[in-house]
Amino acid sequence: MATSKSMHLRVFSLNCWGIRYVSKHCVERFKMIGDLLSREDYDIVLLQEVWSEKDVLYLKKTLSYTHPYSHHFKSGVIGSGLAVFSKYRIHDAFLYRFSVNGYPYKVQHGDWFGGKAVGMVQMKIGGLMAHIYVTHLHAEYCREKDAYLPHRVVQAWELQHFIRHTSRGADLVILGGDFNMHPQDLGCRLLRTSTGLRDCYTETDKFDGCENGHTLIANNPFINEKELRPFEKGIRIDYILFKGSKRVEMKCESLSTTQGSYPGRAFPLSDHEALSAHLLLVPSDPASQQGEPESGKENTGKLAELVDLVTEARTEVKVGVHCAQQKRYSAARTGGMGLALLLLELAIAAVPWLATAAAQHPFPRASFYLLGALCFCLLLCAVVLWLFHSTELKALQSADDHMRLAAASLQEELRGAKTPPPQHAHGENPTNQDACSKED
Amino acid sequence: MATSKSMHLRVFSLNCWGIRYVSKHCVERFKMIGDLLSREDYDIVLLQEVWSEKDVLYLKKTLSYTHPYSHHFKSGVIGSGLAVFSKYRIHDAFLYRFSVNGYPYKVQHGDWFGGKAVGMVQMKIGGLMAHIYVTHLHAEYCREKDAYLPHRVVQAWELQHFIRHTSRGADLVILGGDFNMHPQDLGCRLLRTSTGLRDCYTETDKFDGCENGHTLIANNPFINEKELRPFEKGIRIDYILFKGSKRVEMKCESLSTTQGSYPGRAFPLSDHEALSAHLLLVPSDPASQQGEPESGKENTGKLAELVDLVTEARTEVKVGVHCAQQKRYSAARTGGMGLALLLLELAIAAVPWLATAAAQHPFPRASFYLLGALCFCLLLCAVVLWLFHSTELKALQSADDHMRLAAASLQEELRGAKTPPPQHAHGENPTNQDACSKED
Repeated sequence: MATSKSMHLRVFSLNCWGIRYVSKHCVERFKMIGDLLSREDYDIVLLQEVWSEKDVLYLKKTLSYTHPYSHHFKSGVIGSGLAVFSKYRIHDAFLYRFSVNGYPYKVQHGDWFGGKAVGMVQMKIGGLMAHIYVTHLHAEYCREKDAYLPHRVVQAWELQHFIRHTSRGADLVILGGDFNMHPQDLGCRLLRTSTGLRDCYTETDKFDGCENGHTLIANNPFINEKELRPFEKGIRIDYILFKGSKRVEMKCESLSTTQGSYPGRAFPLSDHEALSAHLLLVPSDPASQQGEPESGKENTGKLAELVDLVTEARTEVKVGVHCAQQKRYSAARTGGMGLALLLLELAIAAVPWLATAAAQHPFPRASFYLLGALCFCLLLCAVVLWLFHSTELKALQSADDHMRLAAASLQEELRGAKTPPPQHAHGENPTNQDACSKED
Repeated sequence: MATSKSMHLRVFSLNCWGIRYVSKHCVERFKMIGDLLSREDYDIVLLQEVWSEKDVLYLKKTLSYTHPYSHHFKSGVIGSGLAVFSKYRIHDAFLYRFSVNGYPYKVQHGDWFGGKAVGMVQMKIGGLMAHIYVTHLHAEYCREKDAYLPHRVVQAWELQHFIRHTSRGADLVILGGDFNMHPQDLGCRLLRTSTGLRDCYTETDKFDGCENGHTLIANNPFINEKELRPFEKGIRIDYILFKGSKRVEMKCESLSTTQGSYPGRAFPLSDHEALSAHLLLVPSDPASQQGEPESGKENTGKLAELVDLVTEARTEVKVGVHCAQQKRYSAARTGGMGLALLLLELAIAAVPWLATAAAQHPFPRASFYLLGALCFCLLLCAVVLWLFHSTELKALQSADDHMRLAAASLQEELRGAKTPPPQHAHGENPTNQDACSKED
């Protein structure tokens, strides 16, 4: 129940599918999005896949009166595609690029070219410090044989890590975006459990939209039904999550989605459905700021769940590490072959004896040069690929290291064993510290 | 003056120059570093340029009793080179890779291959939450014509941003590393002013080490005097910074550096001098946690300084943006030329009329193929370079955007104008908000 002090906050999130010259009706759809946003009067708008600067500028111009504050996050080759529009002044912005994000040679998928990331903006809402996050994770192209699963798991891990570490001073946290994960997927569970963020769809009593909250539906004319298989009706991969604090309690009053069409138009806003959440902010009484403490059982349950989730995540990352090692090895082997052939050609060209031997069965000169050039190209490509997969490998290993550390800490907490207060002034040796979970 | 409740903390920082097969006496020096650390009993050890896994494992093994907790940050092609060893349990670790870090084709400098970053570890020290940061910024190869200055300024900006956003819950903050910046360089000033971190060298009354706290000195046998010019005696580019909080006051009791040699050995630990700081932690009385509030004048002065620093940083970043644009344009032009030549060759090979025309003045077949292959290589290299410089450009523009936002916020604060408390319940239009510093 809203009190006289309570505030309302309307949040909008949409993956705009703004790939100019590729996405259908891109310019018209941005006009429709601009119209909707300036009319509907949302407080905070979180957009993904706004790739073109022209579209960003168009939206900034259109929304200059209703949403005077905005930030467009730049990253990768073509940008991060992330943008925030707000009625409230944006005081600070911070971007964290995910350490892995697909492969540049998978041009048909193209995720690598958009530097996928999580963007944060800080704003004051009614005297409360709000940290607003917008993100977009790597797409899933084939659920049965998902080559990008380790990358997406690492992105989800880094997303929760970033939110946990940067939201400490926040009174309220909102995260919106296209996670490219189903609600029960590992990354989603990890994100919710570790950050304590609550999903608007499961939290609200008043939902109006597609069946099961789907945001990618067969009814959308831009969607190819084949893409959705085996989920013919649709999938839920776009989310708005929220979390209050001791200073403010948050509730989701209602959530709605568009339903594959736009009134009075032949096509919808995007290939994704838009989410609109109506949040209620109830500032807590300063006298009773403590809130209800979490029971020991609840806490243990949450810790155990987190340990399981991190362990599951590590398994996926290890698969990724193995694949990256294989790919790096393959690049090294190809490069080695290219180099060997190139050296052989150089030897034939330079060493008199070899040249004479070659002259007995003359090697066509054109083919000789062509083969040499081909070897050089092969070597060049192999070097670039080797560098890329080495970076991928290091990033995956880094995520695995951080997960191992987190799992050890959680297990320690779960065991109820506490780190002895190191009263030891300098010189005292903390031999009583548990070294079993040390990192080596 | 230390009270009975006070604690002592000994922190060590060293750039280890651990490039196997390139750095001189690498294995022997790591043995010396291991011996020193296990003997000297530092609480926290912050290392840079530990590139080889073998050296990390050696140190972990050697320090397993004295420093049972450690974390090695992985990033880039060959790693970040950053490592932390600690007497206290490390609860969590987080890595932020800088968005720009030199150029892969500057192989002779090699910074790009080490994914330069800032690593954070969290630990509890005597019931206090400590956030410990270790970093290494891009090297400066020529001070007069420093091509990497925009990159280093962006790295310093991201470093302070990361520390500010992730240290909110911390009772104490320590940052150590090789900043590759002189104390009065823009990045250093920006870092100190925006984070409030204090430099051990300027804060301590008891310093024992090289003149002016230099950490790169002519006396070090691994240093080529030419590298130091025009600072013949040396430069100070390695630092230990610290900051307390309302819960704990911090002081630097003493600071020392090595002085270009190691007792009983023919060569020193590294080409950099090691730093050892002795910090005193005095927990504050909970009753008087407020501390002395900053005077209005002091605060205004600090804000004005920050505005100037951010403006100065933006100027440097703009130079970087211009250079990146030029380089990207150059890559595109080269690629275009390669493509045009390749198409011309294809046309000669495919179109009968052109082939006949060519036959009148026969084009040597071998040269024809060779030229084609060369064009293809050129095109391939140009594409890779274009992608790289596009990413660089986006990262620099992103930093500039964040700086612009921060400068606007600081100026707003400086003007004393406050954002009107948005009591406006949903539907009310915040027309009274100052839209002059909006981002468009």
